[in-house]
Amino acid sequence: MNDSEQAQAPRPRPRRSPYALLVALVLVEVLLGGGSLAAAAVGSQLQQPEQPEGCTKPNRTLQLHAVELPRDPATNQIRLGYGFRPDAASYPGPTIEMSRGECLAITLHNHVPAATLAQLRTDPEHPLGVSLHVHGVKYTQLSDGTVHSQSFVPPGESRTYTWFAKKRDNRTGSQGTAGYWWYHDHVVGGPHGTQGLGAGLFGGVVVRRPGDPKPDRTYVTAFGDRQTINLRRGDATDTCDQQNPQPGPTCLVARQGEKVEFIVIGIGNDMHTFHLHGHSWADTRTGLIDNNGVMADSIPIIDNKTLGPGDSFGFQVTAGDSVGPGHWMLHCHMQFHSDAGMSTTVHVLDETGAMMPGHEPGDQPGGQPAPDGGGGHQHN
Amino acid sequence: MNDSEQAQAPRPRPRRSPYALLVALVLVEVLLGGGSLAAAAVGSQLQQPEQPEGCTKPNRTLQLHAVELPRDPATNQIRLGYGFRPDAASYPGPTIEMSRGECLAITLHNHVPAATLAQLRTDPEHPLGVSLHVHGVKYTQLSDGTVHSQSFVPPGESRTYTWFAKKRDNRTGSQGTAGYWWYHDHVVGGPHGTQGLGAGLFGGVVVRRPGDPKPDRTYVTAFGDRQTINLRRGDATDTCDQQNPQPGPTCLVARQGEKVEFIVIGIGNDMHTFHLHGHSWADTRTGLIDNNGVMADSIPIIDNKTLGPGDSFGFQVTAGDSVGPGHWMLHCHMQFHSDAGMSTTVHVLDETGAMMPGHEPGDQPGGQPAPDGGGGHQHN
Amino acid sequence: MNDSEQAQAPRPRPRRSPYALLVALVLVEVLLGGGSLAAAAVGSQLQQPEQPEGCTKPNRTLQLHAVELPRDPATNQIRLGYGFRPDAASYPGPTIEMSRGECLAITLHNHVPAATLAQLRTDPEHPLGVSLHVHGVKYTQLSDGTVHSQSFVPPGESRTYTWFAKKRDNRTGSQGTAGYWWYHDHVVGGPHGTQGLGAGLFGGVVVRRPGDPKPDRTYVTAFGDRQTINLRRGDATDTCDQQNPQPGPTCLVARQGEKVEFIVIGIGNDMHTFHLHGHSWADTRTGLIDNNGVMADSIPIIDNKTLGPGDSFGFQVTAGDSVGPGHWMLHCHMQFHSDAGMSTTVHVLDETGAMMPGHEPGDQPGGQPAPDGGGGHQHN
Repeated sequence: MNDSEQAQAPRPRPRRSPYALLVALVLVEVLLGGGSLAAAAVGSQLQQPEQPEGCTKPNRTLQLHAVELPRDPATNQIRLGYGFRPDAASYPGPTIEMSRGECLAITLHNHVPAATLAQLRTDPEHPLGVSLHVHGVKYTQLSDGTVHSQSFVPPGESRTYTWFAKKRDNRTGSQGTAGYWWYHDHVVGGPHGTQGLGAGLFGGVVVRRPGDPKPDRTYVTAFGDRQTINLRRGDATDTCDQQNPQPGPTCLVARQGEKVEFIVIGIGNDMHTFHLHGHSWADTRTGLIDNNGVMADSIPIIDNKTLGPGDSFGFQVTAGDSVGPGHWMLHCHMQFHSDAGMSTTVHVLDETGAMMPGHEPGDQPGGQPAPDGGGGHQHN
Repeated sequence: MNDSEQAQAPRPRPRRSPYALLVALVLVEVLLGGGSLAAAAVGSQLQQPEQPEGCTKPNRTLQLHAVELPRDPATNQIRLGYGFRPDAASYPGPTIEMSRGECLAITLHNHVPAATLAQLRTDPEHPLGVSLHVHGVKYTQLSDGTVHSQSFVPPGESRTYTWFAKKRDNRTGSQGTAGYWWYHDHVVGGPHGTQGLGAGLFGGVVVRRPGDPKPDRTYVTAFGDRQTINLRRGDATDTCDQQNPQPGPTCLVARQGEKVEFIVIGIGNDMHTFHLHGHSWADTRTGLIDNNGVMADSIPIIDNKTLGPGDSFGFQVTAGDSVGPGHWMLHCHMQFHSDAGMSTTVHVLDETGAMMPGHEPGDQPGGQPAPDGGGGHQHN
Repeated sequence: MNDSEQAQAPRPRPRRSPYALLVALVLVEVLLGGGSLAAAAVGSQLQQPEQPEGCTKPNRTLQLHAVELPRDPATNQIRLGYGFRPDAASYPGPTIEMSRGECLAITLHNHVPAATLAQLRTDPEHPLGVSLHVHGVKYTQLSDGTVHSQSFVPPGESRTYTWFAKKRDNRTGSQGTAGYWWYHDHVVGGPHGTQGLGAGLFGGVVVRRPGDPKPDRTYVTAFGDRQTINLRRGDATDTCDQQNPQPGPTCLVARQGEKVEFIVIGIGNDMHTFHLHGHSWADTRTGLIDNNGVMADSIPIIDNKTLGPGDSFGFQVTAGDSVGPGHWMLHCHMQFHSDAGMSTTVHVLDETGAMMPGHEPGDQPGGQPAPDGGGGHQHN
């Protein structure tokens, strides 16, 4: 399905008739003059723009694949993931990094079986598909990723979404897009993608402006329902091997002194509070304060932040800054959430790359222990 | 009831005896000297000021009417509203706009039948009345709108409240009042006005300082209990007619390029997250960043914001900026809230005033469909 | 237990074997080179630092005592408190004030009977002890106050925690520690200290930088579960005597014109919104805006703020500024919370120190009335 086909496609809810652009010409009541919003329209003006204003042609392309993953070992829930390759899909999906000013065309390929998508919907009239809805950057309705705009991808098909990391424009008041955002499905199961999100179809986005500091490592931590971090809880949140930790969604690790970036996302139905031990950040766009001005001292420094569904924020810290290496807890500070396993560890290695003693996969409170202790190896 | 009568009025809870101002003179223990807060008092000093300091005389007056409206068609709940005229009451009530420095005298007329107010209380000793409690601007206890200060209006009576949009004063540390606020009842049903709020007695307030940009349109969206936006959900949140949309609490519409202001209010018992598709704003007092300074780049740009009861914020966006016309969803990002109908649409018309095809009243997910599809007209 | 003993102590969960620092030398896989985080380690590098970097020697010491207090009269729940003396323990515990740059050694003495601690845990393998975990300031793992770092205090023992109020360092990006924070137990009952917190083991922390304004009075208001302010609700939140109010956790009082500081803390499992009548503050580090710059006008002024568990903020207001003396409500704006008694009063006395008429202990809505009306005295 390409964009020109899309413009002619029937609406997904068959009980309503397809629209034709020119029909409006016949039906509109001509309402001109002060105070009235509606006015005569010509058909050509009703066409939706394909690209956001300012992006005449995308200057980068990406392929993104939505696939079904093995079910969650603890809960047997369906898991879906996005990946730059079908065999590399994960939840969260890959972090998408953009430079301010960049216009990115992302082609989403839907490999998720129709039967799986059908299982995730409750309304049999709801269309089958996956989509890409993004926060913060600019996109037209054709890249909204919603049902009503028909900007989703049926099983086996593809669709290109255009994201524009627009610069702030002080003349027009346009506020710019640099910051920490996220992308997610908006159609699986229902018109808000609740089932797609809950199955794993989400990932982090960061738009950097020139001068923003680059981190050594970036981790996404999505706080979600059932007291989950990245849809896992308890032992499953932290599978780091003490001898050879492999950074990833379930192994948050850095050497002392590295600049570590966190992208924090709220998904699902619950409120959470993100707390990191031993480290704090400024409550700014980047988590940093980069000058000495008087106003800089007005900015709160925090180590705990309320997070609702749809919220995202990010920050950088220097791993172990002043506090040294160790196993630093990262948890929801809602007590019953942390007690139920919404807690993991940021392992700050010493400068030689050695992990402090005292960690075994399976140390997190609550949740379900990994069957074999995370690999069955012996240490300590 | 005027203010001097008010000062002598009996306390609303008859189990306690009325107080007289001079009694304090007799009873107080004289406690002078370091560390002690309490001291000898003379009766004249115990009188409450009628006007906030800095407002010697109100420079504008308003009449505000609290009335009973038809019950909610979907739930049969009692609905109350404020209006500048009794026949123009609505929920939310009218937005009250002030200029910084202004002192506003608002006379509230209580037209709500005593029987209705009696129905909304659970404690038969609780007084009957409506009130006006405002956030952010300055007022004395006589304009607090609470039971304990007796600043409420019994059925059939009137009372004048004084609000002062005080300027920031750097000498005293007084923080100023410019911003997005709200007003609401604080006495219907109980000492916190929970039933008054839930019935519709609330509205937006904006205090502008010189230089604040003026919007072309202002919409209030109150996020409340039972997954409601402005106390409606699903189809009832959006009654816009495609051919002739009439802006109002259930029709959010703007032409491409118009400056649209949103006043967002949290009411009730639940947390929510306000999300708008295609548009973002700065997390500042106005939603705008109006200079190029280094600190400006510290301010987060957001398109999703956590909102608790009592919170209010506001922002301006340029409708369709960069993203073009369309039906842009505005919803709570708590997934079960949006799925249950806490979702509406901001209709961005093209520059000629035509609405994109694809909208019918009744397109919102969840909630209760409008009986006749919002007017029974045919389009598309 | 001193620190060197600590390093050898067995892990609290006996199913796993104790670790020895040098074992790592034998077991590590030597992984050198690009991309790998883990590397060869020597034992000496695995030792945890005792002091945070920048604090070579504490320049102040404090004794802090954790004790069991009488049970809550309304609920019969166990109450624990911290105090600078064992006989002065309270909940919240004493506010700990630091100057930026200060390094503070706090020795925590655990007087809480082992039987009481045993009663508060559900897992019989969980260790008995209390601890001190602090937000915002710098500390090593040895002062983390957690089980996995073994930085807690068994019954009858003591342990010294080191907190460093580090200065912002623009060269390293270290964000500084000035602000409003809190301390709390992290081990009573479970690995997140949920039972310790719920029993009363928490208090406020403020780190002041040079130039930060000093308040005349500081009050801590912790918003917690069961609709509590400082673990009380209804009448129990306000025990002020009208004639001779004694400032404390259940008597918020100030003279007109005094600078009053609030430290607001979220504890437990619920979201809350902190609202204060008649007063507002800037949403900054100090609640103040202290210059006239353009950016200053970007800062929201608020009188209501969402608060999640673990969050803390603070601000100063001038009591009665512009609004005069009176009984100003301070409550959670979640309506069912305030209706259930999560509401208290800030009593602003007039300039002579007299309290406005109209207050009796027992005026708060909801909750449990004090048995004798707060002292049985007659007034008014």
